[in-house]
Amino acid sequence: MAQAAATGPTLAVIAREAGVSVPTASKVVNGREDVAPETRRRVSEALERLGYVRRPRFDAVRSNGLVDVVVHSLATSWSGAVLHGVEEAAHEAGFEIVVSAGLTRVRGGRPERGWFDRLCARGTSGVLFNLAELSPTQYTWLEQHRIPYVMIDPAVDPPPGVPSVGASNWAGGVSATEHLLALGHQRIAAIGGFRRKVCSSARIAGYRSALAAAGVRVRTEYIRYGNFSPDLGYLRTLELLDLPEPPTAVFVCSDPMALGAFRALAERGVRVPDDISVVGFDDLPEAGWANPGLTTVRQPLSEMAATAVRTLIRMMDGEVPESTRTELSTRLVERASTAPPKG
Amino acid sequence: MAQAAATGPTLAVIAREAGVSVPTASKVVNGREDVAPETRRRVSEALERLGYVRRPRFDAVRSNGLVDVVVHSLATSWSGAVLHGVEEAAHEAGFEIVVSAGLTRVRGGRPERGWFDRLCARGTSGVLFNLAELSPTQYTWLEQHRIPYVMIDPAVDPPPGVPSVGASNWAGGVSATEHLLALGHQRIAAIGGFRRKVCSSARIAGYRSALAAAGVRVRTEYIRYGNFSPDLGYLRTLELLDLPEPPTAVFVCSDPMALGAFRALAERGVRVPDDISVVGFDDLPEAGWANPGLTTVRQPLSEMAATAVRTLIRMMDGEVPESTRTELSTRLVERASTAPPKG
Repeated sequence: MAQAAATGPTLAVIAREAGVSVPTASKVVNGREDVAPETRRRVSEALERLGYVRRPRFDAVRSNGLVDVVVHSLATSWSGAVLHGVEEAAHEAGFEIVVSAGLTRVRGGRPERGWFDRLCARGTSGVLFNLAELSPTQYTWLEQHRIPYVMIDPAVDPPPGVPSVGASNWAGGVSATEHLLALGHQRIAAIGGFRRKVCSSARIAGYRSALAAAGVRVRTEYIRYGNFSPDLGYLRTLELLDLPEPPTAVFVCSDPMALGAFRALAERGVRVPDDISVVGFDDLPEAGWANPGLTTVRQPLSEMAATAVRTLIRMMDGEVPESTRTELSTRLVERASTAPPKG
Repeated sequence: MAQAAATGPTLAVIAREAGVSVPTASKVVNGREDVAPETRRRVSEALERLGYVRRPRFDAVRSNGLVDVVVHSLATSWSGAVLHGVEEAAHEAGFEIVVSAGLTRVRGGRPERGWFDRLCARGTSGVLFNLAELSPTQYTWLEQHRIPYVMIDPAVDPPPGVPSVGASNWAGGVSATEHLLALGHQRIAAIGGFRRKVCSSARIAGYRSALAAAGVRVRTEYIRYGNFSPDLGYLRTLELLDLPEPPTAVFVCSDPMALGAFRALAERGVRVPDDISVVGFDDLPEAGWANPGLTTVRQPLSEMAATAVRTLIRMMDGEVPESTRTELSTRLVERASTAPPKG
């Protein structure tokens, strides 16, 4: 690709070298006034020393009225909520959306190289990624082509300077756990998603904080990790039921995992909420369809997507976001899967 | 719009005038050999008499590698299944998809005029509509611009010559009813969607045929109509329960309506499947999440969408489909909501 033949350091490298944030380095490059003289000097020196060349924007940017959205799979209610939010906000701003998904374009959770080549040939005004993460090469490619992009709810913190929109996962974990504590539960377990992914670890940290604040001991055997899928929710729930002292309530870090937990409980004849309370996380449509209805922590997925669109549009206008991480608040939606513990 | 300034009759008008099908008229216009001499003569006369002018294809067609998909709403598991099928098949053929939805673009179930203007400005290789129907003006606009398009599961039969892909609704109604008959039910009710829409009336016709074939009397009071939404499924089920002789089984013509039926039954303390059996139609993900799992007639939505993409691509190459209606087979998926009648 001819467009990829950019040379010299990226703005992120300059920022690191000068010990400043990417937005600050960008301000200096763009000749903005609101930078302290000493900071400006450090950035200017780094620019000169490393031979920074300001790159032109990718030609097609802004010209074609198309915003790209890349999701892991289209066949989930999750991506339905995300696309709904993206489409409405994009349309309001006069953009149309090109949607990509599936394993042929996204391998191992990351879009394959062919997708980038096609994007290059066709042009785009900007890209929204609703994927766990991108590879270092892909981040570099996007920066080299000066294509504006925003991550929607990445599972892993993106590199410094990359804007992302997510939910307040920690606060959500706190509210789920506080709800169970308020009902009188003390033996509260938690099933997280991937152990090392920030969206999951933040939820479990919220669970721990709420227990600690209530003076309830955190029991290691009550904390399990899955992968957000129903199957792992099912397996981890069976493990919890087999403990010498099983929990009376469980906070499950995604709705699909919670539905897997329902299946395990039904198989063992453990009634929800009579014998055990269950709280999910997401508030996908299936939480309302489940029987009993799943009490869950609502992530405002469509609003998160719309916020990402508006951030992207500001970036198209050359704005460097001051805050690269936006978190929208979660809230507990009470349905029928939680009740006070027996006896 | 300058492009809309086409004059003279459309090919559909010519075909009507000559008493032939649109594909046949198209063959004559395109100089193909496989037309009977007498037919060719009739079409040629009509072409001359009505002053047919062969229109150039809409400029942007085929050039930009984009296929448009218009759905009623992105926030449903239905459109998730459709988009999944469209995206995979389009990608396989080297196309990317532009997705439009929502009330701002689709008013009263039909895309508003602004959408057509934008399409005209941007260009497209072809359009897939997953909407109930289009207006006569919109059909004319598409034909005047020679934009290839295919309807996915329209609720109303499109005009002659417009290709559509759907499911074998009649056969699905038969299989749902035969399943209930085989379990021993005789008092079988049916809740249809919109009374006048073909996808719904075909399912109810299948129900009637299966009852008749089994020698079971069709009872008018057992046939109700809704609108495919859970709320109408709920209301019609309450009506059926209030009959002097309520049914022991009900065939509900969409999964969302069947979940509304579940709600009505739960409220009245009528157990599924112990007291009443329920069969749905669609096999959306929520059929599997429901409790008990919903026995339902599976429509292969993703396969229907993929078939529509392949039809569209053949039309881009100038082919006029011989058969304008493709129906993919349905099949019964047995879960836990059906059982023999009591006593």
